[in-house]
Amino acid sequence: MRVAVLSPDLELTLEERDRPTPAADEVVVRMRSIGICGSDVHYYEHGRIGDYVVDSPLVLGHESAGEVVAVGEDVDDARVGERVTLEPGVPCRRCEHCSRGEYNLCPDVTFMATPPDDGAFAEYVAWPADFAYALPDGVSLDEGALVEPLSVGIHVARRANVGVGDSVLVTGCGPIGLLAMEAVRAAGATEVVISDVVPEKLTLAEERGADLTVDVSEEDLVAAVDEATDGRGVDVVIEASGAPPAVQSAFDAVRRGGSVVLVGLAPDGEMPFDTNEIIDNELDVFGSFRYRNTYPAAIDLLADGAVDVAGIVDFEAGLDDVDAAFRRAQEPETVKGMIRLDGE
Amino acid sequence: MRVAVLSPDLELTLEERDRPTPAADEVVVRMRSIGICGSDVHYYEHGRIGDYVVDSPLVLGHESAGEVVAVGEDVDDARVGERVTLEPGVPCRRCEHCSRGEYNLCPDVTFMATPPDDGAFAEYVAWPADFAYALPDGVSLDEGALVEPLSVGIHVARRANVGVGDSVLVTGCGPIGLLAMEAVRAAGATEVVISDVVPEKLTLAEERGADLTVDVSEEDLVAAVDEATDGRGVDVVIEASGAPPAVQSAFDAVRRGGSVVLVGLAPDGEMPFDTNEIIDNELDVFGSFRYRNTYPAAIDLLADGAVDVAGIVDFEAGLDDVDAAFRRAQEPETVKGMIRLDGE
Amino acid sequence: MRVAVLSPDLELTLEERDRPTPAADEVVVRMRSIGICGSDVHYYEHGRIGDYVVDSPLVLGHESAGEVVAVGEDVDDARVGERVTLEPGVPCRRCEHCSRGEYNLCPDVTFMATPPDDGAFAEYVAWPADFAYALPDGVSLDEGALVEPLSVGIHVARRANVGVGDSVLVTGCGPIGLLAMEAVRAAGATEVVISDVVPEKLTLAEERGADLTVDVSEEDLVAAVDEATDGRGVDVVIEASGAPPAVQSAFDAVRRGGSVVLVGLAPDGEMPFDTNEIIDNELDVFGSFRYRNTYPAAIDLLADGAVDVAGIVDFEAGLDDVDAAFRRAQEPETVKGMIRLDGE
Amino acid sequence: MRVAVLSPDLELTLEERDRPTPAADEVVVRMRSIGICGSDVHYYEHGRIGDYVVDSPLVLGHESAGEVVAVGEDVDDARVGERVTLEPGVPCRRCEHCSRGEYNLCPDVTFMATPPDDGAFAEYVAWPADFAYALPDGVSLDEGALVEPLSVGIHVARRANVGVGDSVLVTGCGPIGLLAMEAVRAAGATEVVISDVVPEKLTLAEERGADLTVDVSEEDLVAAVDEATDGRGVDVVIEASGAPPAVQSAFDAVRRGGSVVLVGLAPDGEMPFDTNEIIDNELDVFGSFRYRNTYPAAIDLLADGAVDVAGIVDFEAGLDDVDAAFRRAQEPETVKGMIRLDGE
Repeated sequence: MRVAVLSPDLELTLEERDRPTPAADEVVVRMRSIGICGSDVHYYEHGRIGDYVVDSPLVLGHESAGEVVAVGEDVDDARVGERVTLEPGVPCRRCEHCSRGEYNLCPDVTFMATPPDDGAFAEYVAWPADFAYALPDGVSLDEGALVEPLSVGIHVARRANVGVGDSVLVTGCGPIGLLAMEAVRAAGATEVVISDVVPEKLTLAEERGADLTVDVSEEDLVAAVDEATDGRGVDVVIEASGAPPAVQSAFDAVRRGGSVVLVGLAPDGEMPFDTNEIIDNELDVFGSFRYRNTYPAAIDLLADGAVDVAGIVDFEAGLDDVDAAFRRAQEPETVKGMIRLDGE
Repeated sequence: MRVAVLSPDLELTLEERDRPTPAADEVVVRMRSIGICGSDVHYYEHGRIGDYVVDSPLVLGHESAGEVVAVGEDVDDARVGERVTLEPGVPCRRCEHCSRGEYNLCPDVTFMATPPDDGAFAEYVAWPADFAYALPDGVSLDEGALVEPLSVGIHVARRANVGVGDSVLVTGCGPIGLLAMEAVRAAGATEVVISDVVPEKLTLAEERGADLTVDVSEEDLVAAVDEATDGRGVDVVIEASGAPPAVQSAFDAVRRGGSVVLVGLAPDGEMPFDTNEIIDNELDVFGSFRYRNTYPAAIDLLADGAVDVAGIVDFEAGLDDVDAAFRRAQEPETVKGMIRLDGE
Repeated sequence: MRVAVLSPDLELTLEERDRPTPAADEVVVRMRSIGICGSDVHYYEHGRIGDYVVDSPLVLGHESAGEVVAVGEDVDDARVGERVTLEPGVPCRRCEHCSRGEYNLCPDVTFMATPPDDGAFAEYVAWPADFAYALPDGVSLDEGALVEPLSVGIHVARRANVGVGDSVLVTGCGPIGLLAMEAVRAAGATEVVISDVVPEKLTLAEERGADLTVDVSEEDLVAAVDEATDGRGVDVVIEASGAPPAVQSAFDAVRRGGSVVLVGLAPDGEMPFDTNEIIDNELDVFGSFRYRNTYPAAIDLLADGAVDVAGIVDFEAGLDDVDAAFRRAQEPETVKGMIRLDGE
Repeated sequence: MRVAVLSPDLELTLEERDRPTPAADEVVVRMRSIGICGSDVHYYEHGRIGDYVVDSPLVLGHESAGEVVAVGEDVDDARVGERVTLEPGVPCRRCEHCSRGEYNLCPDVTFMATPPDDGAFAEYVAWPADFAYALPDGVSLDEGALVEPLSVGIHVARRANVGVGDSVLVTGCGPIGLLAMEAVRAAGATEVVISDVVPEKLTLAEERGADLTVDVSEEDLVAAVDEATDGRGVDVVIEASGAPPAVQSAFDAVRRGGSVVLVGLAPDGEMPFDTNEIIDNELDVFGSFRYRNTYPAAIDLLADGAVDVAGIVDFEAGLDDVDAAFRRAQEPETVKGMIRLDGE
């Protein structure tokens, strides 16, 4: 089968590899839709994210959906033919985090496209059957692939404990920001302000139902939020940009007693913080890392039509064109590229 | 001014009373829309609810909206002319419950239309200014009056901790059941099953977006839920009927580890309960009494178009026809009657 | 090795069986202290608990501690010699409950001494290494065995969300009631009322620090709680008796807005319940089933001296005397019997 | 009556003022014990804390207890003679924060010894009756005064959601750090590490039951925590020093998925923060501001003997010696000074 491999010297090329066979508890999936994530692009450009270094060939991709073509001996044969999305992080199931259901914090997780674990830009992938979730009829394979970034958004909304009637500021109109907006809407938020520096992305956010979009290269975000909330501030801020000014705005734009969720990784993590503001306003600040127990809810939301994920896809390409697709994904206007493969 | 008064011998008649003047912290509101609640009808029929007895003349009504026509000395004059909805329960603000924000449990609450406190079927009502909430332009006065039963639904959804992707069974298609359905939808529930014994109400529930309606006079509710959930049961049951068989079904239809919210008062509270089922399935059972801190969220949901309340109104009448309206409200097909008054 | 086996015709006798060998992820433990639980006695008397029937020979016992004598290939050799307590329920690690960390609700759990799974009254037991928890030096093997019932108490306290300054009523002075009292004390409860009908058990509860003990065969429990709390009621009730009058008292003795945890299984689950009381007082009612994620906390509490478990042991016996021990455990005054075995 | 007044030019002198008379809902209290808080000392030294400036004469002191000598017309006469502690912050009871029970966030709070509101270093104080809490017989007036800083500790422990078996690092051995240690112990923490730079304070912390004390002028705190927790980190960090290195250590010493509570105000709020660490380890960071709904719990804990507060008092003085007492309170070794007045 063909696989898109990133070499340590950052060449992204197709390679032939053996088609995988399923272990006892696995399914083998014919990949059909695979999204290009910002982290994929980051590896493609820099060969590393923090301590994770591409020092041997790596298959990228962790937003994926396809069809089950084979199953291991402990898996129900009836699953062959099932359309599925793969949850890319499989935890150890034994540590204190797994035991408490916080399996996204498992230190021994196998996570697609994170060195040394290979990802999904391949014609076939073998994966634990319980991390391959069936897609109902009304949910497309593209949507299935986007259950992954939607999961990030759902986890963010849960971390922030967003409820009906809440006002929310989302900083950053990338896929995470846009899908966090979908998730908080689904959870009952009634006012969403969103910010970015790329006009095209702000336009997309507006089309997707943001109540107010703020171009922070032209407008003061905190002043805009103050005006929109009569000086009260928003109940929740979701910081999805990793940009230091946005982090600062997050703490200035949230109401007293409100919540700030940090999800956008900063290129350089260190940034000045006014801890007295956190104390005096008694803020809750939550880090949000990947997700847990989100796939069933995300699929239900898609089946119900309660969220829109497909609308963030800018372009599609075949596996043959994966390198060109990655180059396009580097452009600042791009929100989401999707690699599509034919069925068997 | 005219006021509709229920006498201890259960005559509902119009009476002339002095128009109220505002205390320092009050507004006086010209009533415009007043909903007829099941509890109003119950007093009209029986003269009592539990220990609350109509032993002196009582003004019914606690679902109300209108326009501010006068304010007390401590209230901003600018509020005159404001369209408002009145939260009918004003707590003591001093007891342990008020102090913790659980003011719906305040034992010293003044609650409209609960003996001996008069309610809203009057041309003018004086009320504490902070329990009179401004209605934004897009929210009608009828909707304003229905913020009250919607609040009951929102409180139920919060008590149950409903989240995105949850499946919910609502037993009972009265106003509370229907508006609890709105609230859980707004909070992200993706599958709602609802039951009743009145076909007209089930039809209304279906038109309003229920995924499955069950006529329990013809169909087994637990079996229907089992089929709809592949035997798993629903995440949450909202018992809004007070009918013993529905309470029993609630416990049988909820999934292991799920939640049951009890909100429908039973004519006779005593009913058999399998406590072992609560233990073995580790259920959470929550009583839900009135509401707290719901009015701003309810108004935001209405302004956002996220919920529909006006669609449950069956008929309207003027204050002159209040007795006829109460008689119509007694019919089993009626969901909600609305009394409307002209402005000044 | 010798094993105590209960036959379907309810004979409890010692039998010779092969000493177990460890699977790859298991340890083999030389049993040293094994507590006799009420459920063991119930199987011994009745041959069943609910749907669980002793229809083939069963080894009882699930409160156990001992020393690791062998390890499987995936387990660190250094664990040989370790003093451990065994958590008796090993879940599937894959279902929705396990995934959320609610592994006590896993429908595919293997649980010691629950047909058809054998328990701990044996000289050696093989068990998954991650469900064998090391005991620190200051914690005895008897205490290790009692981590199991202490876990039930900790889970109850967590379910009730007991916090500092809370008042708690515990109905029932059996091991669960007494150890729930330890757990709520450790969690900050400052007033504990406890009830039973056996004077010896009430005396033990008083010696162990109950603020008030109530013999419900002689005194009205609700009146006693009212007097102790100036008519307010307790913040939390823990119903650990399964007796219908106690369940009724639980709902009458809790304060408005308080919590009731049901943990004592009723011989006949059906009992009358005033659901209106749950609604009007907006109670939280929590079933509590076994426990999850409690072993590390329980061991830390024991190591810290924050709880006393050994003081509930009435008597000890050797494995040879297991049948006599079970007969003594049937007496109403008995709280806890402990079977002790020598080391290798 | 005599009152200790701080002038805008920072002279602290005794002055004669009229003895207060109670408003309808107030009690007048003969002050008996008044603690000197770090914020009092800060005003005494600098004449301001943040935006709060002593620009007119101010009475300091907000940790107080005494005896009721008069009551307003709406207060029960029987309270005369009652020993009470005063909760120093009285909120508006009307805003969204008060309504939700988060009254510590009320923007219109009257708070003792915060310009322009006078405090407790006076012979008599008039105060709302519901913010004057009765002290049971076993609780001394000094303990009553220290309910205030204990409340800060209890609120911190609640913010962190400390539970049984938790490990906690407290940075800073001032009154807040030491009483937070009491509160987390009462809530079930089984391992407490505490740090400071003053050896005398560390010795006091050790005598009061800290499992490990770390002098950060000599030892690396994160390394010490790592060793104490086998590299896992603590479940909860309570940052009670306001020192930038301690804030940094807080984030390095907490376990993955753990909680950091910030309560120590920084002289200069801005400090560098690694937000990626918050995201990758999915931390919860909670600001903690004053307290709410803590007085009853604090008094119950004291009555129960579950916490020790009196042991942090270094010295006492009469109201005549208040200036000397403030000078002594400035010394780094001082933990808590107490002003004592005779009864009537």
